[in-house]
Amino acid sequence: MGDAITPRSQDYAAWYTDVIQRAELADYAPVKGCMVIRPYGYALWEEIQAGLDGRFKATGHQNAYFPLFIPMSFMQKEAQHVEGFAPELAVVTHGGGEALEEPLVVRPTSETVIGYMYAQWIKSYRDLPVLINQWGNVVRWEMRTRLFLRTTEFLWQEGHTAHTSDEEAQEETLRMLDVYADFAENEAAIPVIKGCKSTSEKFAGAQRSYTIEAMMGDRKALQSATSHNLGQNFAKAFNIQYLDKNNQLQYCWTTSWGLSTRMIGAIIMTHGDDQGLKLPPRLAPIQAIIVPIAKNAEERSKVLEVVKRIAASLGKEIRWKVDEREGYTAGWKFNEWELRGVPLRIEIGPKDVAQGQVVLARRDRLGKEGKTFVPQAELLTRVKQVLDEIQHNLYQQALQFRREHTHEPHDYEAFKEAVADGFALAYWCGSGDCETAIKNETKATNRCIPLDQEGQPGKCIYCGKLAKEKAIFARAY
Amino acid sequence: MGDAITPRSQDYAAWYTDVIQRAELADYAPVKGCMVIRPYGYALWEEIQAGLDGRFKATGHQNAYFPLFIPMSFMQKEAQHVEGFAPELAVVTHGGGEALEEPLVVRPTSETVIGYMYAQWIKSYRDLPVLINQWGNVVRWEMRTRLFLRTTEFLWQEGHTAHTSDEEAQEETLRMLDVYADFAENEAAIPVIKGCKSTSEKFAGAQRSYTIEAMMGDRKALQSATSHNLGQNFAKAFNIQYLDKNNQLQYCWTTSWGLSTRMIGAIIMTHGDDQGLKLPPRLAPIQAIIVPIAKNAEERSKVLEVVKRIAASLGKEIRWKVDEREGYTAGWKFNEWELRGVPLRIEIGPKDVAQGQVVLARRDRLGKEGKTFVPQAELLTRVKQVLDEIQHNLYQQALQFRREHTHEPHDYEAFKEAVADGFALAYWCGSGDCETAIKNETKATNRCIPLDQEGQPGKCIYCGKLAKEKAIFARAY
Repeated sequence: MGDAITPRSQDYAAWYTDVIQRAELADYAPVKGCMVIRPYGYALWEEIQAGLDGRFKATGHQNAYFPLFIPMSFMQKEAQHVEGFAPELAVVTHGGGEALEEPLVVRPTSETVIGYMYAQWIKSYRDLPVLINQWGNVVRWEMRTRLFLRTTEFLWQEGHTAHTSDEEAQEETLRMLDVYADFAENEAAIPVIKGCKSTSEKFAGAQRSYTIEAMMGDRKALQSATSHNLGQNFAKAFNIQYLDKNNQLQYCWTTSWGLSTRMIGAIIMTHGDDQGLKLPPRLAPIQAIIVPIAKNAEERSKVLEVVKRIAASLGKEIRWKVDEREGYTAGWKFNEWELRGVPLRIEIGPKDVAQGQVVLARRDRLGKEGKTFVPQAELLTRVKQVLDEIQHNLYQQALQFRREHTHEPHDYEAFKEAVADGFALAYWCGSGDCETAIKNETKATNRCIPLDQEGQPGKCIYCGKLAKEKAIFARAY
Repeated sequence: MGDAITPRSQDYAAWYTDVIQRAELADYAPVKGCMVIRPYGYALWEEIQAGLDGRFKATGHQNAYFPLFIPMSFMQKEAQHVEGFAPELAVVTHGGGEALEEPLVVRPTSETVIGYMYAQWIKSYRDLPVLINQWGNVVRWEMRTRLFLRTTEFLWQEGHTAHTSDEEAQEETLRMLDVYADFAENEAAIPVIKGCKSTSEKFAGAQRSYTIEAMMGDRKALQSATSHNLGQNFAKAFNIQYLDKNNQLQYCWTTSWGLSTRMIGAIIMTHGDDQGLKLPPRLAPIQAIIVPIAKNAEERSKVLEVVKRIAASLGKEIRWKVDEREGYTAGWKFNEWELRGVPLRIEIGPKDVAQGQVVLARRDRLGKEGKTFVPQAELLTRVKQVLDEIQHNLYQQALQFRREHTHEPHDYEAFKEAVADGFALAYWCGSGDCETAIKNETKATNRCIPLDQEGQPGKCIYCGKLAKEKAIFARAY
């Protein structure tokens, strides 16, 4: 933990990697492009899982588990799907010492194998809707990888549902987009823009793809979760059919939606600063770190006695930890827990013991202005209150930052300046040619067509033709 | 759900598969030897995970995630390890459309890749012990597979720890064996025998392997979890070294321990009967199923009103569900939930509404003797009490069954009869030749040398030579 973190202004990518390694969130695996998620990073993922899983169950979904291996022939059944995923596949050709008759793909996503199973399970309209989620690992062979953002193997959840109508599938698609947005904003304190992906950016095999897009600290966009209306594409490829009320055989309408360990990258880059990580209290594995301060053994034993009592008073309502380690100065510990993004520090020294108080120090307001003295008896109440304030503040800061760097340019010159600074919200005619030209000229891609639109038509920022809606353009991860 | 379950007495293996498929715990995947865990089976796995994860964290362990892919060369670094696992490996030879320079193994277990990472992370005695657990999937290419018991891919947890001494590693190995035994007995209601594996049965690469062995309903043994003291074998293969207090470089002592979805097979076969599954209340995804009974719409609306109230009174302390489906008779629903192993049924009809009561029907005591009338006002208290009784009763029944089929034969003829009936606890000299001869002649294998021994030496049941300890022999899964 000795080396300094590269400042963001100097090299944002180096800052990002430094923070991850110094905070011990993750490490590089021996296999190229793969990642090890270390205990602190995994604890963060467990909090993310808990927040999402509760929301999935509250909206009627159940978890299940489908196999890691998919027959190569399955991938080929949906034309767009195989085209999109073929270049990224990892292929098992040998098992048990012998060459396999048919190579197996390590799942890059599970529409195909889940579609195959749904075709076995679904017989009648009474079996619908099927609302299933899976937590697991997937593999996509990536050329350029970056910890959490793009790794060959990553952890995620993938929801897969089947319905009796397009309307119901569309409702489900948007319901889960709302679930993701609610999670991102209220748990991760990340403001997001909900929108529809353009044809060139949609999921391989989807009818329509939706996304939540967030602005990172370097003003680039990060697609943070997606929800897809698959129409009848996979139902037709895998014969997912049911008998309707009139005893007629019909194809289902299916959806899929996913959020991955990439969310950890979003949290790092939305909130982090040159001191390191800054975790939103609702997801922080450690919400409050208690640091006893003592100059000698006598002081230490007095302080630790009180520390024990106040830790007990926090109970299980707060995720806290005491840093009792000897051989490290209090200042060193302060730095370390700031680097690791713990939202709140509780300091207690001999003076505080004498005065029946503790010091609360906020990670989101370093220095004197973030410090308050709190009577020990009021600790739990005050800690909960301050954690709520920090949660709110992180969200507001991120929202403010995004607003400052989001522009509505009215001509292409202003557009180019806008995407050099952050997000550009601009009319777009819907043509892939305009998207491509914009990308080639500015490196900005069409992030989404926001669901929230003013409604009047305008002129495409690139070609000037009629445009019904505005889109968000930005450089992106 | 129309077909009857094969009776156990007729074909135990068919009964097992019927129960799994009819109860919708799992299904066959399109890839040979792989399994789909359906929502009801996965919900059971989630309860198992919660029970174990809490115990792991209470004993100081943290979760982390290591990569799915392991370089083939890693597998070869520990001689016994590669010998044991080579025949079972699935191998990725292509990624992103190209042949890989070095083939990658899909992890069959993670000692090697975790050992490699520990070697990077551990520098000093201050970094020890490292106590990490991983929840994930592993792949072992199996010839003969059976749902939950032996599948090509399965879900499990694998703990991996590193220590400064053999004693500490041994303590950890036995601590986790105790955790497994405690979980099996108190959550899954499965009595287990804790013991040490013989050399021929130990984990490939371990110094000593420990197991918990349980007796299934067909009197065969099932190894239900294992804990391994790996000595310095993997530390030496992967250079897991630390500087001790005297600044001397030392090799660590490591352990590993695992429990898999096989535990679901153990639960099915320990408690199930010809009516189907019988789940222990502490792990049952649905602990109480509420079945409203009504002959017409008027009755139905009256009954449902009370059902709503009593369901609310159970709150979140009990995992309950109301089966409101129309178009199914009450009798059909009773059968279905019995088949699916729900410990307790709460019936409520018009008469019960009038009398302010409900009927509780126990899955572990079908028929009249398992039914009691309970005042609605006392429901929560009584449900909790009856669930505790069922939990206790399932354990006692399984223990009684194991006792009835465990024998202590004093000569080889009696031994042969004993292993034809169940478990034989007999003196064994420690020789692999005796084990092999016994296996060839009786199909029984050495399950374990129980930790609990009387302490006097005796004569080996096979060769008659001096034997210090007794071992459990049985036919096994």
